[in-house]
Amino acid sequence: MRTLVKHALAAAEPQKNLTIKGWVRTRRDSKGFSFLEVNDGSCLTSLQAVVDANTPGYADIARFTTGAAVVVEGDLVASPAAGQKWELKATRIELVGEADPTYPLQKKGHTMEFLRTIAHLRPRSNLFGAVFRTRSRLAFAVHQFFQERDFVYVHTPIITASDCEGAGEMFRVTTLKGNIDEKPSTDFFGKPTFLTVSGQLEGETFACALSNIYTFGPTFRAENSNTARHAAEFWMIEPEMAFCDLQGDMDLGEAFIKAMAKYMLEHCAEDLTLFARFVDKGVQERLRFVVERPFQRVPYAQAIEILKSSGHKFEYPVDYGLNLQSEHERFLTEEHFKSPVTVFNYPREIKPFYMRLNDDAKTVTAMDVLVPGIGEVIGGAQREERLDQLRDNMRCQKLREEDYGWYLDLRRYGAVPHAGFGAGFERLLMFLTGMANIRDVIPFARTPGNAEF
Amino acid sequence: MRTLVKHALAAAEPQKNLTIKGWVRTRRDSKGFSFLEVNDGSCLTSLQAVVDANTPGYADIARFTTGAAVVVEGDLVASPAAGQKWELKATRIELVGEADPTYPLQKKGHTMEFLRTIAHLRPRSNLFGAVFRTRSRLAFAVHQFFQERDFVYVHTPIITASDCEGAGEMFRVTTLKGNIDEKPSTDFFGKPTFLTVSGQLEGETFACALSNIYTFGPTFRAENSNTARHAAEFWMIEPEMAFCDLQGDMDLGEAFIKAMAKYMLEHCAEDLTLFARFVDKGVQERLRFVVERPFQRVPYAQAIEILKSSGHKFEYPVDYGLNLQSEHERFLTEEHFKSPVTVFNYPREIKPFYMRLNDDAKTVTAMDVLVPGIGEVIGGAQREERLDQLRDNMRCQKLREEDYGWYLDLRRYGAVPHAGFGAGFERLLMFLTGMANIRDVIPFARTPGNAEF
Repeated sequence: MRTLVKHALAAAEPQKNLTIKGWVRTRRDSKGFSFLEVNDGSCLTSLQAVVDANTPGYADIARFTTGAAVVVEGDLVASPAAGQKWELKATRIELVGEADPTYPLQKKGHTMEFLRTIAHLRPRSNLFGAVFRTRSRLAFAVHQFFQERDFVYVHTPIITASDCEGAGEMFRVTTLKGNIDEKPSTDFFGKPTFLTVSGQLEGETFACALSNIYTFGPTFRAENSNTARHAAEFWMIEPEMAFCDLQGDMDLGEAFIKAMAKYMLEHCAEDLTLFARFVDKGVQERLRFVVERPFQRVPYAQAIEILKSSGHKFEYPVDYGLNLQSEHERFLTEEHFKSPVTVFNYPREIKPFYMRLNDDAKTVTAMDVLVPGIGEVIGGAQREERLDQLRDNMRCQKLREEDYGWYLDLRRYGAVPHAGFGAGFERLLMFLTGMANIRDVIPFARTPGNAEF
Repeated sequence: MRTLVKHALAAAEPQKNLTIKGWVRTRRDSKGFSFLEVNDGSCLTSLQAVVDANTPGYADIARFTTGAAVVVEGDLVASPAAGQKWELKATRIELVGEADPTYPLQKKGHTMEFLRTIAHLRPRSNLFGAVFRTRSRLAFAVHQFFQERDFVYVHTPIITASDCEGAGEMFRVTTLKGNIDEKPSTDFFGKPTFLTVSGQLEGETFACALSNIYTFGPTFRAENSNTARHAAEFWMIEPEMAFCDLQGDMDLGEAFIKAMAKYMLEHCAEDLTLFARFVDKGVQERLRFVVERPFQRVPYAQAIEILKSSGHKFEYPVDYGLNLQSEHERFLTEEHFKSPVTVFNYPREIKPFYMRLNDDAKTVTAMDVLVPGIGEVIGGAQREERLDQLRDNMRCQKLREEDYGWYLDLRRYGAVPHAGFGAGFERLLMFLTGMANIRDVIPFARTPGNAEF
């Protein structure tokens, strides 16, 4: 029976006859014995095995190099070394798979750029092991958060013939050869199809049946943006609630961000230590900040006034009717309010057709949740549930009613106030870990010119 | 504060002043009062509200039609009616959204075919509410199963430039206009890209770093198959384990299927009752069968002998070297063994290049788990971890080494025996619910000619 390093290190007392299987991180030879650091990816810390020269298998010790796959049997005993509670006194060692001398992850620093070129090997490094364990735990925490609150998980379609926001660059999906614009009716689905940019509209149909739902799946943007915050393929979380207004939506968004920060502090503590040491010194403080402080809520118009009268010099202009840029968002949360901030009631002109028009006939019930270090992590809205108003919005934005017949049906049959939001999972991970580039929190990033692996 | 119908129905004692929000399933009028069945999708059963003619809001009662969205306030009291513990004695009712008289989900039977054309409304029916609640719970159960066993959830890429099985029809993903074959180097990713058919190869890279991983995401087949078991877009679960052989792989596959069947019986009991009544009388018995019986394991060669000597007349031929068809699989599990069956060690020729060659040099370590009513629900294998043998397999199948450099690297650097499997989530749901068509367990199915919504 194999014991994971994580469980060995968590032992309450010494144990006989453990079998550890993993990869050598380092080996140090001394007179008559060797130390092997063995890591199996189950946790950040490696288990140190002490291998006496008389141990069966020791004849191969020279081939126990960094990256080699090994089995070490032995007894877990208290370690005399500082900083570790347990070590493994080996009784047998076995080389399972050698690491060719060209193994690129030798014990030395590598640039993030280089590690991206070996995305198939980088999870064997301490940093990326931590990133992807964290990604997994947080994904599960997302499901737990919604399932505990009676939200139904919905798999909205990836291939779609509609375009959620009436705009946005989409990838075409086709089985045609040659000229794809000539006879789209002969394509696999009988018409042009694309990769989804959001599951929201389909999610609304399920919220109007099951009350509270969420999606968690991949979404796509065919934007030629080469920034640290944009990827062509990323995962998004989109809850939607029937019988819910903007207030309820902000409540859920804020509770969600707080819960994720709390989960990170409580359940990813070891990996978080690594992020704080090597990636972002302030990450733990920032998470505690978000867990402890109440979120401030401020209407967009007031946020604009605050920014204009701040005396701060911004790169991008600030004016009513313009979108907030990342620098503005960060100023509001980091400098002005010194707390997480939810901005709401945006001008109608800069928001999509499906957001609900306020009684002032000028603003819509949009909301963005801003956190320190990142800016926007959530964008949401109460949806326009009034059929006539929604039609009017569509006319204003030059959308064709016939393309959205099923979406309008939700306003014909038992329409209810409803609201939801979208949270980019990678953006959230960047906030929780301090990792600065979206390419480094995705297993195999897709960006313009890059679809390796 | 809104109370979900599910929580109201689970009350231990009478409660004052509840607020229920949902949609009218039916209304019956009597002299001086009306009964409203209100469903909010939180569970199968509706809550019956008894509304006296003096109740505020009763003037609108004629508009409380099937499909209308309503709020009912009142007291939860013991119901004198048979078959229900609680009813709501209304103190106020409110019409939130009328249902236009054209509302298609009137109280009468509809064909599955018709309901597919209103996939945006069908989750409001009892059957599809149950299907999609079940889908959500089982998805969560999948995550729980693997997370409890220390598996790391990995999001393998959806857009890929490689093709897992060296074959298989794939969808092309492009931002090009016009002729897409002319200058693929000018496409978004600088080369032709496709929708993934499996995350296995990428999953292996993570297993060779983190030991135990799983994927759970959408996969695609551009096959022109119009059957009840094929969809162009479906979700797949793919665990992969380092330091694991075929035996360990079969152990995990069998434990997984048993756990899902057990979860269904224990956590989806109410919805399961509906499936047993209206979809598949034998579904509960089949699930208990799978939970209780040990799985039989039989080599492929022996399975062929059993089929040949069975005297049973099959539609498709049975012979060593041919794939098992659904009818053969079902005969083995339903008729011959009368238990779930795992068939292993398939002829090399009918399996992909990455499966491990057995010492007989004729068979590979493939395995399929077969269950009654469905046939194969899981297909897996121990992977070929020996560099030379893998290269040989690739040559046999005419694959180019340069396309799989990163995959071969896993055999150069600390290679380990490893194994995994794929389970189609929709196939699993069909097994667990008895639903006969894959289109009816997916929110919005994508099949040849169909990408509506």
